[in-house]
Amino acid sequence: MSRRVFLGLDVGGTYAKLAAVSSSGRVLARSSVPTLIPRGPRAFVERAADEARRMAAGLVARWSRAGLGIAGDVDAERGRIRCSPNLKTFEGFPVRDALRRALGVPVAMQNDANMAAWGCYSAELGRRSPNVLCVTLGTGVGGGIVLGGRLHSGSTGSAGEVGHMRVEPGGARCACGERGCLEAYAGSYGILRLARAEMGRRARGLDARGVAEAARRGDAGARRTWRRVGDALGTGVVNLVYLLNPDAVVFVGGISGAGSLFLDPVRRALRAQPFKTPCRHARVLVAETPEIGALGAALYALEGGG
Amino acid sequence: MSRRVFLGLDVGGTYAKLAAVSSSGRVLARSSVPTLIPRGPRAFVERAADEARRMAAGLVARWSRAGLGIAGDVDAERGRIRCSPNLKTFEGFPVRDALRRALGVPVAMQNDANMAAWGCYSAELGRRSPNVLCVTLGTGVGGGIVLGGRLHSGSTGSAGEVGHMRVEPGGARCACGERGCLEAYAGSYGILRLARAEMGRRARGLDARGVAEAARRGDAGARRTWRRVGDALGTGVVNLVYLLNPDAVVFVGGISGAGSLFLDPVRRALRAQPFKTPCRHARVLVAETPEIGALGAALYALEGGG
Repeated sequence: MSRRVFLGLDVGGTYAKLAAVSSSGRVLARSSVPTLIPRGPRAFVERAADEARRMAAGLVARWSRAGLGIAGDVDAERGRIRCSPNLKTFEGFPVRDALRRALGVPVAMQNDANMAAWGCYSAELGRRSPNVLCVTLGTGVGGGIVLGGRLHSGSTGSAGEVGHMRVEPGGARCACGERGCLEAYAGSYGILRLARAEMGRRARGLDARGVAEAARRGDAGARRTWRRVGDALGTGVVNLVYLLNPDAVVFVGGISGAGSLFLDPVRRALRAQPFKTPCRHARVLVAETPEIGALGAALYALEGGG
Repeated sequence: MSRRVFLGLDVGGTYAKLAAVSSSGRVLARSSVPTLIPRGPRAFVERAADEARRMAAGLVARWSRAGLGIAGDVDAERGRIRCSPNLKTFEGFPVRDALRRALGVPVAMQNDANMAAWGCYSAELGRRSPNVLCVTLGTGVGGGIVLGGRLHSGSTGSAGEVGHMRVEPGGARCACGERGCLEAYAGSYGILRLARAEMGRRARGLDARGVAEAARRGDAGARRTWRRVGDALGTGVVNLVYLLNPDAVVFVGGISGAGSLFLDPVRRALRAQPFKTPCRHARVLVAETPEIGALGAALYALEGGG
């Protein structure tokens, strides 16, 4: 008889990451497949299920349950995406049920940042901190919320939209159409806008990682850029801490690799607050666990989200 | 044999309100005693316990448990206030255990806004909405959070500090010492500051209720004042909705009587948001239940906060 393992899938605009964990939560295998958005969600589900079967065969195991994290506004009840700028062709498609049929196991679906938050709570922090906020830094800025050891996905599955908190009302234009959202300062396009203002021509051709490298090399404009990114994130984190009084705020995603360039101003903002107890209690860190979104989805399938 | 009833106490800077509820949650009696801060917490506990005994005798009942809501940063574990600008003499005093000894029943202690939030969830909305945010409007702006039918008081009991979310970084000075907090625009002193700017000499001698009356009489400056208050609250509520995706945001406290003067701009802000699902789902209302803080504390004693 083959052992039972748990699948996590983290579907982004370019790639979908897969992770397999044992019933004790140990990572057994990782993989990825291209999302290929123009070919549509039906073809994607087949591609992902093929890869999942290949993984299970390699592990001499059978899938027990799967967790599906997916970028966009997720209707967890109906198992579909209401809207997703990065996965347009997936909107309205019953992706959870399609994956359930393809794999023959139950599938739990959540927004990708919620699954990453579960990964932060369960893997990164070892379930020792009941109240954990996760902030995802990439093209956009998202988030997920674990409170009292339970994922809080909200009344319509939309909770955790950290990136659309206003940090500068009337400020820079966000991809959502509003002004002054955190994402307009700390999403990759916001960082590049700030870099163009602070670095002038030296910002040309750089992506957010390039701006981080320039800052580490000592470029004054790049350092000012990250200070402004960190100040915006500091305002956001202070708001989060005042509202939710968490044990930890964990940054994940591509841009979180900039580390101390934005963590220092965020920690400084917290230290400067008059309400000492919640602001000193909250640890602020960057997740070290690789591919925490797919792992979080697998652990969510195993653990049921509290 | 006398029946068992549940006591709620809501301790503010001037008065403490008391409420008695039956085991089915029905309000049986209400009362109040002066807080008399300069005489200290020990004398207050005796005064409140005397009044509670008088209430119980009148009801031919015995207290079963009590809920204690108190303005300030509450250490629920140790049953004391860490700090409270409005109850200075209470800081550090073991008020929960003193009340427990005086009444001879278990006492659950929470920040007053948390107890009001439990009242909103349990009494105002009849436990039909699992995710409820309460915003208290008075001298300061506070809040409480019920998620998944459970009170979220945070890792150190400090959650729900809605009033210190930044709605205008670098903006008006808040009583906490920071700039741009929601309270600096929607706490009574913030409203009066805006009224002085918008109404000039006509603001003299008015309190926040007076500014509301002037607006209802058609005073253009008073109307502009409330629009600015409503815009600040709108930014705050939008942030809350994006983060927590609640079923309802309920305003309570003295200033919430201004009703549509601030509710209209708040609802307008939500309607203008690009993320339709969470923003349309959240109802925004003013609590109609009288003395919801004391009632919430009694229901919390009865129901255990989920």
